[in-house]
Amino acid sequence: MIYQRVALIGLGLIASSMAHAMRAGGLAGEIVGYARSAETRSIARDLFCDRVCDTAQEAVQGADLVVLCVPVGAMGALAAEIGPHLAPGATVTDVGSVKQAVIAAVAPHMPAGVHFIPGHPMAGTEYSGPRSGFATLFQNRWWLLTPVEGTDEGALARLRGLLEGMGANVDTMDAPHHDLVLAVVSHTPHLIAYTMVGVADDLRRVSNSEVIKYSATGFRDFTRIAASDPTMWRDVFLTNKDATLDILGRFTEELFALQRAIRLGDGDHLHAYFTRTRAIRRGIIEAGQDTSAPDFGRVPAKGL
Amino acid sequence: MIYQRVALIGLGLIASSMAHAMRAGGLAGEIVGYARSAETRSIARDLFCDRVCDTAQEAVQGADLVVLCVPVGAMGALAAEIGPHLAPGATVTDVGSVKQAVIAAVAPHMPAGVHFIPGHPMAGTEYSGPRSGFATLFQNRWWLLTPVEGTDEGALARLRGLLEGMGANVDTMDAPHHDLVLAVVSHTPHLIAYTMVGVADDLRRVSNSEVIKYSATGFRDFTRIAASDPTMWRDVFLTNKDATLDILGRFTEELFALQRAIRLGDGDHLHAYFTRTRAIRRGIIEAGQDTSAPDFGRVPAKGL
Repeated sequence: MIYQRVALIGLGLIASSMAHAMRAGGLAGEIVGYARSAETRSIARDLFCDRVCDTAQEAVQGADLVVLCVPVGAMGALAAEIGPHLAPGATVTDVGSVKQAVIAAVAPHMPAGVHFIPGHPMAGTEYSGPRSGFATLFQNRWWLLTPVEGTDEGALARLRGLLEGMGANVDTMDAPHHDLVLAVVSHTPHLIAYTMVGVADDLRRVSNSEVIKYSATGFRDFTRIAASDPTMWRDVFLTNKDATLDILGRFTEELFALQRAIRLGDGDHLHAYFTRTRAIRRGIIEAGQDTSAPDFGRVPAKGL
Repeated sequence: MIYQRVALIGLGLIASSMAHAMRAGGLAGEIVGYARSAETRSIARDLFCDRVCDTAQEAVQGADLVVLCVPVGAMGALAAEIGPHLAPGATVTDVGSVKQAVIAAVAPHMPAGVHFIPGHPMAGTEYSGPRSGFATLFQNRWWLLTPVEGTDEGALARLRGLLEGMGANVDTMDAPHHDLVLAVVSHTPHLIAYTMVGVADDLRRVSNSEVIKYSATGFRDFTRIAASDPTMWRDVFLTNKDATLDILGRFTEELFALQRAIRLGDGDHLHAYFTRTRAIRRGIIEAGQDTSAPDFGRVPAKGL
């Protein structure tokens, strides 16, 4: 057991997966939860929390670990609310996809003697809510921590032990670098997927039914990403604005170069580009970050 | 048995999957193959062809079905080569991802009495080559036929029988509409995925190793698509230029609108957009065109 009492604030995919994983590993003495929605609290009580409270203040009382699992835009208000009720010596972490904005919003509300260690589990699915969690979500996934200078080494090591106990690989980096890396590997890809799905949805000459029927040709992969939680993603883009706009600028520059090659019939440019991008896929499979099974090893569609 | 002798010209993912599927269903008397590469011919001889020829002309002789499985840009030269050697009454089909360009390239070389019925199986994986095929590739996937006016009904019904025998659902539409639909559901998504992977590959501040390590956050899905065969995709963009440029224009228009919303901090616009795109995903799952399992039901990564 690594923490006596873990308080999870916000009870969606990440919090419920953490609860299942901590339970499976015997990592927490008591798992306490709070969510704004009464329905979510009720599901959490049934499925994965030892105790569910009606307020966030109550939930954090006496907890030696508090995990903020709300959308990035809600972190500041939550921190202000729980700050005065945190136990001395407690560790507070979060699971937000953006780190500079969370630090700016949360750190000012942390009382002296509380260890705030920002974090980001790079794991998820296209599902959200308290029923979507499962114990193996973090297995072999990276969990980034972005500790500020002067962070207590003991508190950091203890938190790392919990994350590794849930199967995650832990890395630390500074918050600005985190936000840039994530703009590349996650935020911009999500925005692009959302855009492509929106374009298909808009097109009148191609009916929705055709878009759906014939989606196995590439499009369906985008729809999985574009089915992610809208509130979470709105907040990501609003709070990681600079890095996302930077990477988007590079993306459109490249896209225009390829578009020009198509217009001019420059097959060599296209072929060279498409050959280069193959190599990254091999690297990801070798690093154990994706399956090599064709089509992600998708189970055959229904009717088989 | 639907055809006495099927000649497959070009022996990659689609042809090898067809051979496995026809064999499994007892749909063809003899499966004859030809590919330009001697190595491919040798693999095909071992794995899925009854007979492999050293020239395309030889392979099509006496075949009642000929399937052109080469990249779209190679179809015209191939048609010119085999035209004089086709058996009277034979059906010729192709599996190219673009239909207007293939019809323009192939039809002039088809002798009277030969039925040319253009086709496109909307199935595939990120792998290519003669070892990548498997018998269930077409199960519950759509196979579009774009017959020209005056196509022989009997020949069309017979071809449809073969495709359905391999597990496919068959639809017919006209070639220009096909090319537009595919620009939306396949060609533009592929170009975007290639672009995003190229951008990540280029970035110096984010190392390749970080892009790979942290790819489970969205990016890795793009890399699967961007690992597809470069020659096939070069030809798709060169031959479906107008529709692809049209959809790309709409895509960048939408992307700029979202980019502007990010810059201006317009959270309502973002949230509404991201909510709307969720519905298409549900439609695809209900239509049996993708799995509802989280993360495509990816098998857990190695080390578990």
